[in-house]
Amino acid sequence: MERHFERELDKLNKRLIEMGSKVETMIHLAIQSLVERNGELASGIPALEQEVNHMQLQIDDAALRLLATQQPVAMDLRFLVTAMKINSELERVGDQACNVHENTQILLQYPPLKPLIDLPVMAQIAEHMVRESLDAFVKRDAIQAEAVIMEDDRVDALKDQVFRELLTYMMSDPASIQRALALILISRNLERIGDQAVNIAEDVIYMAAGRDVRHPQKERSG
Amino acid sequence: MERHFERELDKLNKRLIEMGSKVETMIHLAIQSLVERNGELASGIPALEQEVNHMQLQIDDAALRLLATQQPVAMDLRFLVTAMKINSELERVGDQACNVHENTQILLQYPPLKPLIDLPVMAQIAEHMVRESLDAFVKRDAIQAEAVIMEDDRVDALKDQVFRELLTYMMSDPASIQRALALILISRNLERIGDQAVNIAEDVIYMAAGRDVRHPQKERSG
Repeated sequence: MERHFERELDKLNKRLIEMGSKVETMIHLAIQSLVERNGELASGIPALEQEVNHMQLQIDDAALRLLATQQPVAMDLRFLVTAMKINSELERVGDQACNVHENTQILLQYPPLKPLIDLPVMAQIAEHMVRESLDAFVKRDAIQAEAVIMEDDRVDALKDQVFRELLTYMMSDPASIQRALALILISRNLERIGDQAVNIAEDVIYMAAGRDVRHPQKERSG
Repeated sequence: MERHFERELDKLNKRLIEMGSKVETMIHLAIQSLVERNGELASGIPALEQEVNHMQLQIDDAALRLLATQQPVAMDLRFLVTAMKINSELERVGDQACNVHENTQILLQYPPLKPLIDLPVMAQIAEHMVRESLDAFVKRDAIQAEAVIMEDDRVDALKDQVFRELLTYMMSDPASIQRALALILISRNLERIGDQAVNIAEDVIYMAAGRDVRHPQKERSG
């Protein structure tokens, strides 16, 4: 029974990692399509979103079923609840990648405003944060999760830099306003992804700290 | 024992409602301070944010403790897990209210750009959505939750309208760009709050549908 539970937790981990890698691909394709000005590159995003939405339901069901049938306590309980929170968060990272994709479709209707340097870097850091926060979850590693939170400062600094730069474009040339706005909104989408990775990391830290669950009445192993 | 559990669930409900009313107040104060151009009105927001953050931890702990000690199944299990998801969501609604507040502080440094009509309406709808989604949760009412999701179309339509209007301001007068941008960002903050209420409503519907939890092994009421 216990070994069965371990196996099920392991399956859940693998699914979350797989879901994480799908949303990373979504971010990557959306930004690549923007940088290379190639709408085709992003054509797989809607199908990926469908898959991610489907996985979210599956993972939620699997976690709820484990809670109901195994009635875990202490660390295993926290782990399952955290898995469900991370699951919701990942689905919303996917939504943000879709928002980048939508804003990109607007941009591709116009000639390029400027070479894009900061946005791809922001995207790369945000992807890395998502990956690392999930890895910290699977390893139950609060220190790795702390590192994710530190990385968010770079994303925020880049967001401010992008904003200032695009503001000067807008002020000096009204013809740039629509494109600059779309780029600002994309930087906000990427900032949100960084925030979502921070949310995951915070959940991992709270889980790993583990001092808040008391279970005075029943001790069960599975 | 059962009665004890019911009482605890009831307490949890009341706390979530209280937390919801605090974040509603935060939204309200932030927008009122913007409309009346009075920074003082929003001075209570940081303290409210602290209280909301504190409540989030308390509610999470209470729900986890109930999961561990009462080991509920079926509807009660789903209810507790949903309470934890809603808890995270409410805290993030509070974060968005803080973002409105920050953008307002920028705006109050400049003379007013235009009378604000749509943003207060957006805020009012978003507040209503948060309140109704929580009420639907407490009543376990999927139909009421569906109504919240329908309301979001109005928020999105207002967001698009605000965007188009402010874009024309920016195009015709570069001196308006910074203020128009801050107002656009506020409309995005309010849009996010609408989305967060939709997230809560979707969780309620998923909870109320209740067809995905199977519990073949143990049936416990305690």
